[in-house]
Amino acid sequence: MNGAQALIRTLVDAGVDVCFANPGTSEMHFVAALDDVPEMRAVLTLFEGVATGAADGYSRMAGRPAATLLHLGPGLGNGLANLHNARRGRTPLVNVVGDHARSHKRLDAPLESDIDALAGTVSGWVRRSLMPADVGADAAEAVAAASAAPGSIATLILPADVSWEDGAAVAEPCPPRPAPHVAPSVVEEIAGVLASGEETVLFLGGDVMGEDGLLAAARVAAGTGARLMSETFPSRAARGAGLPDVPKLPYPPEMAIAALAGTKHLVLSGATSPVHFFAYPGEVPGHPVPEDCTVHVLSAPGEDGVAALQALVSLAAPDAEPALLAASRPELPTGKLTPRALSAVVGALMPEGTILVDEALTSGVGLDELTSGAPRHDSLSLTGGAIGDGLPMALGAAVACPDRPVIGIQADGSAMYTISALWTYAREQLDITTIICDNSAYAILEQELTRVGAQHGGERATRLLELTRPGLDFVALAQGMGVPASRARTAEELTEQLRKALAEPGPHLIDAVLPGR
Amino acid sequence: MNGAQALIRTLVDAGVDVCFANPGTSEMHFVAALDDVPEMRAVLTLFEGVATGAADGYSRMAGRPAATLLHLGPGLGNGLANLHNARRGRTPLVNVVGDHARSHKRLDAPLESDIDALAGTVSGWVRRSLMPADVGADAAEAVAAASAAPGSIATLILPADVSWEDGAAVAEPCPPRPAPHVAPSVVEEIAGVLASGEETVLFLGGDVMGEDGLLAAARVAAGTGARLMSETFPSRAARGAGLPDVPKLPYPPEMAIAALAGTKHLVLSGATSPVHFFAYPGEVPGHPVPEDCTVHVLSAPGEDGVAALQALVSLAAPDAEPALLAASRPELPTGKLTPRALSAVVGALMPEGTILVDEALTSGVGLDELTSGAPRHDSLSLTGGAIGDGLPMALGAAVACPDRPVIGIQADGSAMYTISALWTYAREQLDITTIICDNSAYAILEQELTRVGAQHGGERATRLLELTRPGLDFVALAQGMGVPASRARTAEELTEQLRKALAEPGPHLIDAVLPGR
Repeated sequence: MNGAQALIRTLVDAGVDVCFANPGTSEMHFVAALDDVPEMRAVLTLFEGVATGAADGYSRMAGRPAATLLHLGPGLGNGLANLHNARRGRTPLVNVVGDHARSHKRLDAPLESDIDALAGTVSGWVRRSLMPADVGADAAEAVAAASAAPGSIATLILPADVSWEDGAAVAEPCPPRPAPHVAPSVVEEIAGVLASGEETVLFLGGDVMGEDGLLAAARVAAGTGARLMSETFPSRAARGAGLPDVPKLPYPPEMAIAALAGTKHLVLSGATSPVHFFAYPGEVPGHPVPEDCTVHVLSAPGEDGVAALQALVSLAAPDAEPALLAASRPELPTGKLTPRALSAVVGALMPEGTILVDEALTSGVGLDELTSGAPRHDSLSLTGGAIGDGLPMALGAAVACPDRPVIGIQADGSAMYTISALWTYAREQLDITTIICDNSAYAILEQELTRVGAQHGGERATRLLELTRPGLDFVALAQGMGVPASRARTAEELTEQLRKALAEPGPHLIDAVLPGR
Repeated sequence: MNGAQALIRTLVDAGVDVCFANPGTSEMHFVAALDDVPEMRAVLTLFEGVATGAADGYSRMAGRPAATLLHLGPGLGNGLANLHNARRGRTPLVNVVGDHARSHKRLDAPLESDIDALAGTVSGWVRRSLMPADVGADAAEAVAAASAAPGSIATLILPADVSWEDGAAVAEPCPPRPAPHVAPSVVEEIAGVLASGEETVLFLGGDVMGEDGLLAAARVAAGTGARLMSETFPSRAARGAGLPDVPKLPYPPEMAIAALAGTKHLVLSGATSPVHFFAYPGEVPGHPVPEDCTVHVLSAPGEDGVAALQALVSLAAPDAEPALLAASRPELPTGKLTPRALSAVVGALMPEGTILVDEALTSGVGLDELTSGAPRHDSLSLTGGAIGDGLPMALGAAVACPDRPVIGIQADGSAMYTISALWTYAREQLDITTIICDNSAYAILEQELTRVGAQHGGERATRLLELTRPGLDFVALAQGMGVPASRARTAEELTEQLRKALAEPGPHLIDAVLPGR
């Protein structure tokens, strides 16, 4: 058995049976070994950033790691932006990077580069397999390292000759490492804070954004008067009717500050204390937490936050009835296709069980509000701020959950970083509906240019943020990669086209032409 | 004057007046300052890998650095693969990466990552500007560091607040650092080697691939009987009628070994000693140099190789008449559109002064041979093996040389890594004709799968190297980004379409459908 065969078999035995791949010469034995281990599903992507973003989306939905297969340092480089998002979302992910044969490393061949340094910037665990006999154990440990709460990226660097030489063996999966429990004394202390009567926000994120965590949080809020709020970009959030209304901390600093104004206690549950995405000119703090607010940690990322919330319910709100959202859908809008109308169409039509991949950025106006009473669904967001994760995440989510519809709400500028994801949608015939928010601009940067005080109306600056002359024809781009596509210029057209896309299997793209174009 | 203004003004004063940009929030003051320094031309790209590849192509043709503008660690990550190619090609390049404001760094905001570690893997020089007063001097030194022979990447990390704060000043350009001369004793020693009568190859690369170097090398060859050969992927090579025939060392190891068989002396002139791109199973050396061959260095990269060759002419071949290629064009082929027919059409039609950007990979059959007698032109190749440099390099070359036609011969799979370069072609109305070598496969990997001995006919492995089901419609993709496009299925159709594309200004794309689809 060669190294590649042992690697793939060990991954499959440990529950990692999907690999998003963009291989090169040094990965050819891994590719060949796919025919020896048919339980591993390899999904080809045309760019490594699609592979890593897909692995991110897959793992968020499957709750267990996907693998990637990347080619040397440049392949890892192309995958880094979405590995950054995965790292920020604490996604478990086994990142397999091929390298030159050991004998070839010292020759400084043209593709030689410092893979280890690149890997270190995004990984919680990095290992280079040194001989075929190691590969099985290395792979098992990579899965264990990636899966240990709260989840991280484990990068396994696989030299070509370690892959092709015999003498390898399959390794048993490592025993799972359960998330550490929160000490009862911590829960008691938080119960005391909540009993103070002072204005308190229970700030949610990470593992408590699923159904059990949200229902427990809602009972705490109902029993104590604490407000619920979540991090701005949760990795995965359960949403919809029957769950509590948990507003997200807004992205713009001034709105985030307003949202937390008056808060005396911020209790962190699965989230870290919020900071602004960016600093802005002027003497302002880099975070929205009021100066006289005390930050408390109920559970840190990686601790069992759901159990901690449930323990808190027993102490602080044993008989509380949570306030839950009733089923409600927005009315179908008519006329002009604004961002808010787009959100209303989605809220009105999205089926139960939808996976909503939200990279709408400035076009996501009202999306949370107008989908909050929709049937139960999950939402994935851009955890690390590196744009271009939306299309790939939708790909991974659809592979993880073939029986659930995926709707991607995708900003136009961001879509272009990883547009070739659409080809893999078509190749794998995934049930993904992509709605392009087509405002023909880096609209978020137009806002930021003003926010940083840099806008003095210069034509050259403005021009650098426009996606015009020429415009991007997303219908042609989608069709060029085998995805049926249409263009919606009114709310009615979007309604009709989304209905049709949701009714048919396979991928669809709708170019929603928004004001600004 | 704020840091951004001082930076741009200093760059312009030092001769860096083109910036390929994909900015984000932390770069908004740089963007705003573009209106204060109109001499700086900012070219927007939709993906950072396009920006870095364009800077690579620009600098190869302009002979002086372009700047990039990238957004934080993820933006740098997206740009790394083509920075790798630039590093391997020793391209001078000023890589400007925005970062969080200094006060924001410690907060571990979502976009925080280890920019310095990433930059270190591709840069010869890395600096973080620490305060506005430093920016001007830092920028001047970045240009000097990038420009010092043989050329390298200088990465300047620019915190957002250093960019927006006042107190900056423009710095004078640093004095140029000329390339060191090769010692006369070295030239004498090489002259002695050439006088030995033993089989000698003069192995060319880097700075000697221009007209002066090639003509001197041809005289040495004529006077001493040495054979000329060049590195496999020269950064920029002067080619065509009136220049010597300098075959490239072939890419496949068995052909490279055959090309150097019997060589007793390998004299390096601007090139390093060749190694194979990859290792392959079996006990074979990682390089094609025969065991009993001695490697001599006439000039190393960074030394003045042209002067060394000219000194060698004076010593070893003062009266030699160089063998130069006569003007000759292949006949226009008819019928089936094979890779060789494609090369013949290009060789028959390419205008004088063409910049040929060669990322044809397996489809480049006969391209060198069939263009060797064409009118004088320059050829740019994939120096670092990280595919996806072709479309961006053509962009940069066209910006550097607006009066010269650019023809990109582009493999289909590789095109998809940076396909959004086409949009910038259209936006800037660049005179670039892209010929897609559309064989619907990662054909090079199909060959490599066999070469590494990994091919045992598995269906899943084979499927992972096919770009089919669906095929990619490059005509639709180009049109979707504003580039006029057509499809050629015969040699005659390619001839007609290439003629038309070359006759009209602005960008064109031809999808050349090759056997295999």
